[in-house]
Amino acid sequence: MDVLETIKTRRSARSFADQPLGPHIVEAIEEAILYSPSASNAQEAHVVIVQEKARIRQIKRFAQGLSGWPAALVILCSNRDEALARGGIDSAETLRFINLGVAASAVMLTAQSLGVASCPVRSFHGESVAAIAGLPEAVRPELMISLGYADQPPRPKTSKLLREMISYEQYGN
Amino acid sequence: MDVLETIKTRRSARSFADQPLGPHIVEAIEEAILYSPSASNAQEAHVVIVQEKARIRQIKRFAQGLSGWPAALVILCSNRDEALARGGIDSAETLRFINLGVAASAVMLTAQSLGVASCPVRSFHGESVAAIAGLPEAVRPELMISLGYADQPPRPKTSKLLREMISYEQYGN
Repeated sequence: MDVLETIKTRRSARSFADQPLGPHIVEAIEEAILYSPSASNAQEAHVVIVQEKARIRQIKRFAQGLSGWPAALVILCSNRDEALARGGIDSAETLRFINLGVAASAVMLTAQSLGVASCPVRSFHGESVAAIAGLPEAVRPELMISLGYADQPPRPKTSKLLREMISYEQYGN
Repeated sequence: MDVLETIKTRRSARSFADQPLGPHIVEAIEEAILYSPSASNAQEAHVVIVQEKARIRQIKRFAQGLSGWPAALVILCSNRDEALARGGIDSAETLRFINLGVAASAVMLTAQSLGVASCPVRSFHGESVAAIAGLPEAVRPELMISLGYADQPPRPKTSKLLREMISYEQYGN
């Protein structure tokens, strides 16, 4: 599917069919993550892909923001120490979150282009998710993306008007 | 172009041909921004698209990270106050940067899919760029994306290995 069309048609999904992702989907997600650019090429992110039903069930107990039963969870983690060492203070404080957004976008758009719905999740208990995913101390889970085949139509999106979000040459134009 | 193919082929461009973007390109970039999801749909970002040569020249004086002479600059700005009001403290501190990354990715991938190269730029003097773009006090420029037709082949990308970046079920697996 065309990139812009993919961006325009993606909506967050909150209910999923009981159907695992095919291996070609997981492979595509892996590639999307690997090829995502990061500032100064610091690549301080780490990603855990969870597909075991029991583990997803465990994580769900600590993630009130996670709706439905997705086929997979992509846990986007960030290593502040590595960001600091490889990219400096701006990477540690700000850029590593921008990098995570870039990677999250790549995962969601790649999934959408292959017919797989997604939802970014930020409301979860970080320490519990870290324990379930066996993360070392320095690697913190910052965002999860749920993936699966949507079994309900998405909510309609309400969006700001173009002139509220975008200016030309100068603010307000 | 296919989404994953677009992700895999995009590289940062640092030298551009002296050629403006067509209006259909600018329209596609606008749509990519408008349809980019933001946490809690807070949409606290504001974007200024600069195409005037004189203004790009002015900005370039205050942006050591900006290489070459792009046809356009997309200035991704963030409003901390609006993020706080619409999404709470987590939006103000972290999510607004993740949102910017999602939007930056949408801009870069849409451009790439239409044959337009890009480079994210973070090294610039924020106050000077804000003044040139006429930003109100609360709206701060956080990231610029240069856009244009690349006139040099991109540098090869060095990437971490898959097993360094991605684990399955638990960290290290």
